[in-house]
Amino acid sequence: MADLLKQGKTVRSIDIKPQDEWYQVHPDAENLQADLSLLDAAMSGTEGASEVFMLAADMGGMGFIENNKALCMLSVLTSTHMLQAAQAHGVERYFYSSSACVYAAGKQTDTAVTALVEADAYPAQPEDGYGWEKLFTERMCRHFLEDYGLTTRVARYHNVYGPEGTWTGGREKAPAAVCRKIAEASISGEHHIDIWGDGEQTRSFMYIDDCVQGSQMILAGESPEPVNLGSSELVSINQLVSIVEKIAGVSCERHYQLDAPQGVRGRNSDNTLINEIYGWEPSITLADGLAQTYAWVYDQVKRSQG
Amino acid sequence: MADLLKQGKTVRSIDIKPQDEWYQVHPDAENLQADLSLLDAAMSGTEGASEVFMLAADMGGMGFIENNKALCMLSVLTSTHMLQAAQAHGVERYFYSSSACVYAAGKQTDTAVTALVEADAYPAQPEDGYGWEKLFTERMCRHFLEDYGLTTRVARYHNVYGPEGTWTGGREKAPAAVCRKIAEASISGEHHIDIWGDGEQTRSFMYIDDCVQGSQMILAGESPEPVNLGSSELVSINQLVSIVEKIAGVSCERHYQLDAPQGVRGRNSDNTLINEIYGWEPSITLADGLAQTYAWVYDQVKRSQG
Repeated sequence: MADLLKQGKTVRSIDIKPQDEWYQVHPDAENLQADLSLLDAAMSGTEGASEVFMLAADMGGMGFIENNKALCMLSVLTSTHMLQAAQAHGVERYFYSSSACVYAAGKQTDTAVTALVEADAYPAQPEDGYGWEKLFTERMCRHFLEDYGLTTRVARYHNVYGPEGTWTGGREKAPAAVCRKIAEASISGEHHIDIWGDGEQTRSFMYIDDCVQGSQMILAGESPEPVNLGSSELVSINQLVSIVEKIAGVSCERHYQLDAPQGVRGRNSDNTLINEIYGWEPSITLADGLAQTYAWVYDQVKRSQG
Repeated sequence: MADLLKQGKTVRSIDIKPQDEWYQVHPDAENLQADLSLLDAAMSGTEGASEVFMLAADMGGMGFIENNKALCMLSVLTSTHMLQAAQAHGVERYFYSSSACVYAAGKQTDTAVTALVEADAYPAQPEDGYGWEKLFTERMCRHFLEDYGLTTRVARYHNVYGPEGTWTGGREKAPAAVCRKIAEASISGEHHIDIWGDGEQTRSFMYIDDCVQGSQMILAGESPEPVNLGSSELVSINQLVSIVEKIAGVSCERHYQLDAPQGVRGRNSDNTLINEIYGWEPSITLADGLAQTYAWVYDQVKRSQG
């Protein structure tokens, strides 16, 4: 958003939340509250737009996704109405943020992962609910391109994190949750942390600035096929915790909650395709990104405690 | 519809087509024209209903499906809004007609088929467009049951045919198309027929009366999992043509159009599950069903020729 404005573009930002709950409101953008799952809202939301970044979905971390499968599938209304509206308004380029959750769970059962290449999505067995909606909409994007000529571009996001994102309330993802827990420990002086699972599950995490750059690149690019957009710096959740501890200058006793949602056992992004096509891949290190994120989350925790 | 009325039920029938294009209008039913892809129409359509048979979709034979993938996926709006509406109105039982098109194409490459069991749908590689929408909605039915308590039941229809169905215009399926072509040959005296592909592709076809009985049985039943609803009488398209020729008392020269859409190479319904659960499977023979169908299609052709 900030980046698009900096480029001199006219920006309309739409979110279902009331504006006082937005993490960022840019006064230079047109800022609307609307429920894009409704056809009328999608139609008026895309009116006059030449480019659409379709990032809207009911989502959250594993705790949310595993307990809200029907709700996650209902995002298909937003996905479908936005495609219809973009096509009706003659939008020039349409970006859809898909997810690493489209990948078959059977290929993610080991912490020592083979990174996922784009073709691994088929034959399909995505994450229940959320992943199915993402994969279905990827395919709809393809058919809107082939059948209706709408220029659609799809990125498969792998675990985006950064400041100005959900950090509490049940929908936050691992990096924000870990930052919050360690900030709370640091502030309270009670140095322990609850970790979902045994902490050995692995992931890669992409800092928001890489995500912003990569998304615009993919939208402007020529690949009609979905492309991984993720960091290939693989860490375990335990390593993630250690990095944040170092940033915070605390060390916490770790309590492992073995019954908590954990998602797949291991997942990394194979960046061969994005490198081939664009000669680029996300490169901001987890240590650098988490330093920014921790500082912001720490402020939120401080502020929320009055 | 006729069957439900006979049971003394109050029936509301909804179709997107203007009523003068309906194949059947039962005066004892409430007959509405509405576009159920719109939330409002789905809401008013399900108001007061205790049972819903959700059969609406943009569909047709292979010629239609292969050339209208985006359109077929857009049926997801009807599928989703109807589920939402049924849940909002406290519908007691919700039937969804899925399709054999959910099955992975890789398991249907041979005319000498192994019949498809329900588990063959996963890992998923359904028919492009149409099959993906059906599989996605099957899964949404499951999550509406698990997350929201709506009693959903799903049947996977295998090639339904019979009188009072689409027989011309590009959306008709193989049995109706073959009946029409042979009726035209019989009436014109020009005894030749165009067949899509080499005619050796295999299928099973379910007569509408079996479909009506099976659908009600599955709706009333206890299986939350999708169940095949199809005949296990496997024939090639060439055999299908021969049966209709015999009924019509003509013999046609066959012209094979090898470039025409053919769908998968071979497909049959494994009826182990439906037999186990309900002690029943579709049993009306193709010869009997086609006799009824041919007679009706012949009348339509005659009438259309004035």
